[in-house]
Formats: sequence, structure tokens, C-alpha cells
Amino acid sequence: MRGISLFSAGFARTRHFFVRARYHGGMKKVPTDLHSPGASRGAKDAEALKDPDPLRAEAPLRGMESYASITTLTETGLSSETVFEGRLLHVKLDRVRLPDGGESTREYIVHPGAVVIIPVFDNGDLLLERQHRYPLHRDFIELPAGKIDAGEADLTCAKRELEEEAGYTASEWREVTTIYPCIGYSDERLAFYLARGLVPGKLKRDPDEFLEILRVPFGEAMDWLRNGRICETKTVVGLFWLEKMLEQGW
Amino acid sequence: MRGISLFSAGFARTRHFFVRARYHGGMKKVPTDLHSPGASRGAKDAEALKDPDPLRAEAPLRGMESYASITTLTETGLSSETVFEGRLLHVKLDRVRLPDGGESTREYIVHPGAVVIIPVFDNGDLLLERQHRYPLHRDFIELPAGKIDAGEADLTCAKRELEEEAGYTASEWREVTTIYPCIGYSDERLAFYLARGLVPGKLKRDPDEFLEILRVPFGEAMDWLRNGRICETKTVVGLFWLEKMLEQGW
Repeated sequence: MRGISLFSAGFARTRHFFVRARYHGGMKKVPTDLHSPGASRGAKDAEALKDPDPLRAEAPLRGMESYASITTLTETGLSSETVFEGRLLHVKLDRVRLPDGGESTREYIVHPGAVVIIPVFDNGDLLLERQHRYPLHRDFIELPAGKIDAGEADLTCAKRELEEEAGYTASEWREVTTIYPCIGYSDERLAFYLARGLVPGKLKRDPDEFLEILRVPFGEAMDWLRNGRICETKTVVGLFWLEKMLEQGW
Repeated sequence: MRGISLFSAGFARTRHFFVRARYHGGMKKVPTDLHSPGASRGAKDAEALKDPDPLRAEAPLRGMESYASITTLTETGLSSETVFEGRLLHVKLDRVRLPDGGESTREYIVHPGAVVIIPVFDNGDLLLERQHRYPLHRDFIELPAGKIDAGEADLTCAKRELEEEAGYTASEWREVTTIYPCIGYSDERLAFYLARGLVPGKLKRDPDEFLEILRVPFGEAMDWLRNGRICETKTVVGLFWLEKMLEQGW
């Protein structure tokens, strides 16, 4: 295992040891009747549980002090049930095995994933949308975005959503990044694409989708970000990333 | 009403007119037995419905072309029911009146709001956390954050979470911004605070909370953001904003 550094304050070292101790005790209790995704791996092979984190496979983390090993923080599913199946939301309630061998429950939304489009006109202006968001009872200024259909490729979805929702096609597409907006209680994934070479296309909105298309100079959009007028994560992330692409070649 | 510009392609103008026409037709049908928040305003005073958007009160939006008025995109609640009440998630299903007078349903999470702390050591290093996020079955590198208790002030929560979760107190606090992470299906609000003058305090985690504290140079954290190792919205937003504060005096 790689050397990965942990925070060095005395309590942290103690805590670290404590967590690991509880974790190893807990391992003995891991049952074999797991049925949530990824769980069987842990049940059948306790070794696998020691390093299931893709983050750790990449590179060591740096900290005040180095440890020869690292705590596994993984929670493994014991059972899973759907507690609400709506038109939009699918809510699950799973029983999980904690790293210390204890049990808890996790409630979360199962989401198909979405794309976010950063549409830039030839003169550098951005295409943005104003849309009412009922959960917050207000409008937001946003980048175009939309949920991925079953089996649909991210880029196919991005092209479809830009045309259907904003009425534009783009001749140049570039994959930008993938971001997770709500990791505490949703598995939603947001795939960002830069779209250039914009040409008017064919609007085709959902029957209950009402929005307004705006064309905004990039500098003004950044002012809106700073002053809080743009305050919704996918748009905030998309604008910051666009600035990095424009100014620092990201 | 202010002059607010709309996108000028022919279809957009047509669409705009169409939406407004449907909207005005729909207004007559707005009932008076609304009971969701903010809805009575719309029911009792149709005038109020014309400009309920705080975004529109601030400044005109710019676009390819100017209009003398703007479509109201507001959806008003007709009824609301709780469809799932979990330990963490509270899921609501509301019937809503659409801008065109039609009806639809909206499903969303009611969330107490949360704080995000950007803790910066005296030498510029960041305090970050590694935490397993069960909905995505992987670990994430994150800024410290936590849900706001009932009646708790944002800053009080930020101080509490930094100490309980990361084991630190800070002598300097600065309010940074407020961001909405998941506007399509959650009312969650994230209040960001910069914390400096860090001093070890007293760790006190929830019984089912397992995480690892990391100390990471700012430049390295930005590299992780660029290469996708940091890919979770509150942390992405916090890092970009910190860079703006450091380099451009935001």
C-alpha cells in the first residue's frame, strides 16, 4: 500500500488507530448475503475491502505526516429498498455496514445523470437560460442542461438538449469535466461539454418546461457569479471552468 | 417593467409570444385555495405574479434584442404532500400551476441547508477531508461541511462543524457566498465561509461519520480539481472561489 499522509494532530493519530481497530473488528461480522451494488466484492473477499477507493489507486495524498497505511472508509450495502418511486425521483433506503463494523442506513436519490452545456457564441457571449425552480420558489440563471435518457451517450444527450431546450446546434463539441453535485444524498453525475459554432436549430421543449434564453457577455456572466445573481452550482462550475479554458488553456 | 432582452431568433420570438399568450389565459384559472409557500401571493394578487422573481428586480438581462416585458416563468403551488419522511430525506410532491395555466407535479427534497468551510492554514495549505459517499460507492475529497441545525445561524454551524468534524477552530471567519447545489429537485442552500487562524480543537463526530483529514497545498488542490480527482461541487466551487479571493480580491 502506498504511503498516504494523514493529518498529524495527536487526536487524529489516536482517532485513526481507533477507527482502524474498530474496522478490523467489524470485518469479521461482514455477512455474505449482501445485495447492493459493489457489496459482494467486499463480502467475498475481505482483501478487496482494504483498497476499493479509486482515489487511492491514483496517487498518495499529502499531509502533515506520513502513514504506511490508510483507513478504509468504505460502507458496504447490506440491503436496499425503494421507498419512493415518483415521476422524477427514485428514493432508496439501504442498510449499510460501516467501516467500524456497525450498521446504519443511507437514504439517497437514484438519478440517471445529466449533461451541462457551455454554449459560447463566436464573439464570446454565452447562451444562458432563465428558469423557474419550484423547490426554491424562484428563477435561476443557468447553463442549459438535461437528464440523460436510458442508454443515451453523454454527448448525444448534450446535442439533443441544446437543440430541444435552447434551440441551437453546435459544430464544435468538447468534453470538459464530470462533477457530482449532491454526493450526500444523490448519485447524480453531471457531464460538462463546451459547445461552439452555434447555429439556430429546432426548439422542442417538454410540455411542462418553460424557460427564457439569454445571450450574455462572458464578463457580465462572471460579474453575476461574483455578485450572487448566478448562484446555482452547475452554472458556477461551468463559468469558472470556461474562464480557465479561455485564460489558462484548461 | 424594465426592458429585458430575449434571444432574438425568429422561433424564440414566436415562442415567447406563445408562452405569454398561454400564460395570460392560464391566469384566469388560478384558484384561491393554494397552500404552498409563496402561493397565496399569486392567488390573491395577479399583479404580483407578473414580477415575483428577485432576479428581475435587480437589473435588466442583456440579449440580442430588447422586449418591453418578459414572460413570467413562475410555478405556483396548488397542493403539497410529504411522500417520504426518512432519517435524512424529506420528499415532497406538489401539484403546481404552470405559467401557461396548465398543471403538473413537482417532486423535491426539503433540506435544512448546509455550510461549507474553506479552512486555510497560515502557510496557505488547505484542510480537506476524504469521506466515503455511499450513493456513489466511492470516496470523495471534500471541503468540510455540515447540515444546519434547526434555528442555528450559518456561522454558528460553520464553527461547530469545523471543530466537530475536522477538529479545528478558527480565529478569522469570512462569509464568502451562497450556492444552490441541486435546484432541480432539492431546496438545499450552501453557505460558504472562509476560515483562517486555524488552531486544533476538539473532534466530536457523529457515530456513523468516518472521515480522514488531509492537509494539501493550494496549488496541488487546484491540480486535483483540473484532473478530476476533486470533482464534487461544493469543493470545486470553494476552490475556484478561494483562488479568486487570493488572486483578484473577491
